[in-house]
Amino acid sequence: MGKVLLDMNVSLDGFVAGPSGEDGGLHNWFFSPSGGEAVAESVGNTGAILIGRRTYDQGDRMDGFAHSPYAVEHFVLTHEPPERPARGGMKFTFVTEGVEEAVERAKRSAGDGNVAVGGGASVAQQCLGAGLVDEIQVHLVPVLLGGGIRLFEGVGRVGLEGVRVVDAPGVTHLLYRVLKED
Amino acid sequence: MGKVLLDMNVSLDGFVAGPSGEDGGLHNWFFSPSGGEAVAESVGNTGAILIGRRTYDQGDRMDGFAHSPYAVEHFVLTHEPPERPARGGMKFTFVTEGVEEAVERAKRSAGDGNVAVGGGASVAQQCLGAGLVDEIQVHLVPVLLGGGIRLFEGVGRVGLEGVRVVDAPGVTHLLYRVLKED
Repeated sequence: MGKVLLDMNVSLDGFVAGPSGEDGGLHNWFFSPSGGEAVAESVGNTGAILIGRRTYDQGDRMDGFAHSPYAVEHFVLTHEPPERPARGGMKFTFVTEGVEEAVERAKRSAGDGNVAVGGGASVAQQCLGAGLVDEIQVHLVPVLLGGGIRLFEGVGRVGLEGVRVVDAPGVTHLLYRVLKED
Repeated sequence: MGKVLLDMNVSLDGFVAGPSGEDGGLHNWFFSPSGGEAVAESVGNTGAILIGRRTYDQGDRMDGFAHSPYAVEHFVLTHEPPERPARGGMKFTFVTEGVEEAVERAKRSAGDGNVAVGGGASVAQQCLGAGLVDEIQVHLVPVLLGGGIRLFEGVGRVGLEGVRVVDAPGVTHLLYRVLKED
């Protein structure tokens, strides 16, 4: 069975988006030639993706899913499914029964692969708060955005253990295991 | 001439102290055997230290300066110097004329060594906000504290360039150069 991996791009000051909701260059590494290896590894390990509604809407609006290398089923946590299907031919499943159910269904779909929780901050915080996250991968981008949407907000204390650090041009990939209290 | 280096221990969620002002284990690596190499390098490069008044009071109260490996002059940014001298035999200079003057005097004292801005968050933010910081070294500790004092708050957008990443047990040392707009 795969893991639930929080997988997010973050500025050094902890934002996943800038003051006006702009991406602040946080995703540049993903589309750069030097990002290829990390992206290929992630695509290979990922069996399903879980995102929030705003991330879905943003991806749809910007035609982002048409260019995504992830062909796996995307689960979207939402209060109300959209009226028209998204562009891009990807399989989207809308879950209205809360984060536990969304993670459960994503896990079943992922099989031996990981469920990658890809944002936004709200769904990430819900997953962390509910103790559903096994690993956190932070792609730390060398910039202070100075404001915006914080990844870690209102989550409470969570113990971590460093698993791996990979430094690359324009980004440092930091992987942590979440220490669960039994 | 040395550099002005912001040099701070930070949790993965960006705090330099926990919700009740506790250190949250952020300094453990510094006193662990595996931290020796990084500490020795830092001590060797540091020509002066700049701290805020609360950090000074805390260090004095906990007898922290008596155990510090840094024998260099410590500059303390404050509104009012304390009435009695600190314990520990270290040389403290209290600067009441603001952050620019404090950095300037620390630089003169440091000679070819670096001025290490060692906290707290307020003096770090003042230095960053005034464009006085050449490099930022974040000692990233694998824990989410869930609240407390944030290192990067109200600083505005600052461009950075990754210089070096060193992973060690219980901490990742991340060094960045501040990109100054000319």
